[in-house]
Amino acid sequence: MLTNPSQKYPPVSSVDLDDRQWPSRTLTKAPIWLSTDLRDGNQALFEPMNRERKLRLFHELVRIGFKEIEVGFPAASRTDFEIVRHLIDAGQIPEDVTPMVMTQLRDDLITETVRSVAGARRVIVHFYNAIAPAWREIVFGMSVPQIIEMVERYIALFRRLTAAHPETEWILQYSPETFCMAELEVSLAVCNAAIRAWDAGPQRPMIINLPTTVEVSTPNVFADQIEWMDRRLERREHIVLSVHPHNDRGTGVACAEQAMLAGAQRVEGCLFGNGERSGNVDVVTLALNLYTQGIAPKLDFSDIAAVARVAEECTALPIHPRHPYVGDLVFTAFSGSHQDAIAKGFAAQKADAPWRVPYLPIDPKDLGRTYDSIVRVNSQSGKGGIAFLLQRDHGIIMPRRMQVEFSAIVQALADSSETELSSEEIWAVFERTYLAPVREQPGLIYRSHRLFEHADGQGIMLELADSDGNVRILEGTGNGPIAATVAALDQPLRIDSYEERSLGTGSDAAALAIVEAAIPGVLGSRFGVGRHANITTASVLSVLSAAARFSMEITAVG
Amino acid sequence: MLTNPSQKYPPVSSVDLDDRQWPSRTLTKAPIWLSTDLRDGNQALFEPMNRERKLRLFHELVRIGFKEIEVGFPAASRTDFEIVRHLIDAGQIPEDVTPMVMTQLRDDLITETVRSVAGARRVIVHFYNAIAPAWREIVFGMSVPQIIEMVERYIALFRRLTAAHPETEWILQYSPETFCMAELEVSLAVCNAAIRAWDAGPQRPMIINLPTTVEVSTPNVFADQIEWMDRRLERREHIVLSVHPHNDRGTGVACAEQAMLAGAQRVEGCLFGNGERSGNVDVVTLALNLYTQGIAPKLDFSDIAAVARVAEECTALPIHPRHPYVGDLVFTAFSGSHQDAIAKGFAAQKADAPWRVPYLPIDPKDLGRTYDSIVRVNSQSGKGGIAFLLQRDHGIIMPRRMQVEFSAIVQALADSSETELSSEEIWAVFERTYLAPVREQPGLIYRSHRLFEHADGQGIMLELADSDGNVRILEGTGNGPIAATVAALDQPLRIDSYEERSLGTGSDAAALAIVEAAIPGVLGSRFGVGRHANITTASVLSVLSAAARFSMEITAVG
Repeated sequence: MLTNPSQKYPPVSSVDLDDRQWPSRTLTKAPIWLSTDLRDGNQALFEPMNRERKLRLFHELVRIGFKEIEVGFPAASRTDFEIVRHLIDAGQIPEDVTPMVMTQLRDDLITETVRSVAGARRVIVHFYNAIAPAWREIVFGMSVPQIIEMVERYIALFRRLTAAHPETEWILQYSPETFCMAELEVSLAVCNAAIRAWDAGPQRPMIINLPTTVEVSTPNVFADQIEWMDRRLERREHIVLSVHPHNDRGTGVACAEQAMLAGAQRVEGCLFGNGERSGNVDVVTLALNLYTQGIAPKLDFSDIAAVARVAEECTALPIHPRHPYVGDLVFTAFSGSHQDAIAKGFAAQKADAPWRVPYLPIDPKDLGRTYDSIVRVNSQSGKGGIAFLLQRDHGIIMPRRMQVEFSAIVQALADSSETELSSEEIWAVFERTYLAPVREQPGLIYRSHRLFEHADGQGIMLELADSDGNVRILEGTGNGPIAATVAALDQPLRIDSYEERSLGTGSDAAALAIVEAAIPGVLGSRFGVGRHANITTASVLSVLSAAARFSMEITAVG
Repeated sequence: MLTNPSQKYPPVSSVDLDDRQWPSRTLTKAPIWLSTDLRDGNQALFEPMNRERKLRLFHELVRIGFKEIEVGFPAASRTDFEIVRHLIDAGQIPEDVTPMVMTQLRDDLITETVRSVAGARRVIVHFYNAIAPAWREIVFGMSVPQIIEMVERYIALFRRLTAAHPETEWILQYSPETFCMAELEVSLAVCNAAIRAWDAGPQRPMIINLPTTVEVSTPNVFADQIEWMDRRLERREHIVLSVHPHNDRGTGVACAEQAMLAGAQRVEGCLFGNGERSGNVDVVTLALNLYTQGIAPKLDFSDIAAVARVAEECTALPIHPRHPYVGDLVFTAFSGSHQDAIAKGFAAQKADAPWRVPYLPIDPKDLGRTYDSIVRVNSQSGKGGIAFLLQRDHGIIMPRRMQVEFSAIVQALADSSETELSSEEIWAVFERTYLAPVREQPGLIYRSHRLFEHADGQGIMLELADSDGNVRILEGTGNGPIAATVAALDQPLRIDSYEERSLGTGSDAAALAIVEAAIPGVLGSRFGVGRHANITTASVLSVLSAAARFSMEITAVG
């Protein structure tokens, strides 16, 4: 690197936390969710949402189950003002949903904000101001006492303004912006001043919202900061302690989870991690992480593709193919050993038993997704995925050693084509490998057969053709049709195993017969497959399939 | 939700860790990095890399500074085998770079793997097998003693095979796959058996690599697991303790960072978080997180766009616009208050001082990025961003009150157009607002002027036109050209402030004059702007600009 980071970037300071509790706790319930999709998410878009898209997303957030929704910045944007008024005046906000509006600390903005929501049943007004040293010194030129005085003054103004609207239940949310970069003593002093200024209590609800405005430390430090504050905030029992994690270090989800362990009761975030710069914490991931721990998240993502579609259409931002739970690739196992384990896991999974399918942390069905995309096959894949696809799509259950043989054949093709093979392509390879030889291999092209009882056992008369259509009749006898067919052929074929299963049901039902064969001393194990509505014919064909495959190889070698 | 997660998904079990140390530590140095882009990353692509792309990415990884690179799964893929042999035989691996190859525990695969790398100077062979209960029971049907016996047996085979190649320095990496889901006592027993089987020591280097094969718990639990193992592994001083975090819960970066606090010395991951399902930990984010803590990451991302381009071209996967450090949107502030703070931060930032620009955790220059994309303007933006763009691109420094006036004008446009405004568009608004009126407002269209010394001070003769080209001549006198111009106009104009600055240098240099004016009792503060190579002419034009703007407003009102 050209620059020396140790001279340019100060290391993070840690928190002096006696008797730290949060790492020993586990999550037991969902937080109160606040969606800021329409505010922090919207303000960070290439193209902010118009009224129609904002309203569409608002109704989707309600449908998902958010009970607190930040609807905008009405004093700073005409569009936001009109939308907030429309939602209130047209009765579009369900009884159990509380809207939130944000405002900076300025007389005219606070007055306009109160005006934008007056008449609502219940509303959260969100005050914020930055308190970290760089902001105090570079941006505002204010001392800590001046900041505290300012916060007290504007909360007093807000109390006066809201006293004129007793029909509305007013909740104050105070965010010490840049909290994660501020001295904890300063954060505490400012928050406690706000709590006293609002006179928070049973009848005067209040939210203290602590953001990682910009993520600057490992997430355990944020958890320490939250636990430190949780122990010291005044009137703690009357305060909802909230966090607003960003994702500048890619650890927004971890910050939120560990902050919840440390005492946070409420989380602000966006669907799929939208928001300023690298985004807010992704509430979809956070909620489904709870889900997989056996905790009901109280948000409905049972049709996650539909949620993703609304979010993508409203924000015009893509969702990454590796996004947890939602990405196109997350229910996809390319590795052969993973595919093998997943196939076994599905087979072993009982309907009412705890979820235990290897490599799948959540049942795709719980998100309205299917198993379709789980298994793809490419040159890195092994037998498990191939076997799974053939079984799922064609009912074909291959013996283990046949899986090895067939996966090598598929893999050779995948390696040379460099693209993944679809289930259809795998089936085509199967068909060409095992079923086509009895239609194509000269001298072994099957025409018909007739079985008859013979004094020595089962007799067979086989009609086989060459490529010009010339037929020959072969006869053989054995203890059953397979042995009789082997006897009829003029090859030293040895059958090592045989199995047969039905495929499908009703008038379309067929049987699939599989034999493992060898020509001792010449060619080792090869599998032959026969498929026919008549199970005996299928078994005759499976022997001919193996014989034809040997014949093809011998012909190829010369 | 339709399903009840509490009955379907078992909660994570916590770690009984006495005297937990990791949350009190801070990161002090970079880990050993292992890139698995060519293995875990490659096996999870829609379309795996061909030989050309693999080699291109290998050389890019070397250039970035990776000293350990997992080059593939040579026993499972012909392509991988050929690439590994090519790199070794053609001397393409620098002396300080060690390749790693992965193998499952099977006789033929291990033999083939050793064959693929024989003759290398130094190589890491990566053994893995899954050890968690679901895998033991569902996938393999093996007991813990059987697993330990198997690990010992294959390490013994590996010792025999490698003893025949003393010219190569052989390093064994053992990964208890599914570690994060296994009982810690089982993980420890298997790892210690591997350590003894390899006889790890000063001359027999060994890596124990603990993966979150599938992320299943909050990242503090993984850190606990790592600290638990770190304290108990045998021959600890001869072992490199490594982690391989995945990202199924979106917390891969947090797992890696907290594992490093807990004792991990080495991290395996991929550029931009490629890898199975939701990916491996993103080493770009992890490295740059260290960078912003003042720790040299020992990976070169000083031209991060070039790295992103190679990765995107090799993997055919996109990088999300909100990706930390790399996304198109991460050095972009849309919020007006953020823009304002950033502008002040840049102004206050001294060249050699610690980085302290608000809302920018890293200097974009350190990544080869520029400030170009930092400020965008849309209806959510305030005056700071607009002022920044006009200053940067046009050298225009607006007085603070003028920023307020102009940002309201821009915002009204942005609100109605719903798209962000580019710097060019903002300049066009500026031009139309302040410079066009003296070309367009009837009766105030500037044609020429002549200054002359007068007994009472500065005299001016102004030639102004209406829209039909009819001119009139106005004369006035004052203590300078601005006062003279005001006197010449037939408007009760009052000038409240005036400032003028040069724009550009040399023959193209011009002056920009700004006046703040009012019509007492009729219209409050408006700004007028004049631009001209002659500073006196610019100031005359600025007064005319203000007068023309008042005239336009009065005309509009009627």
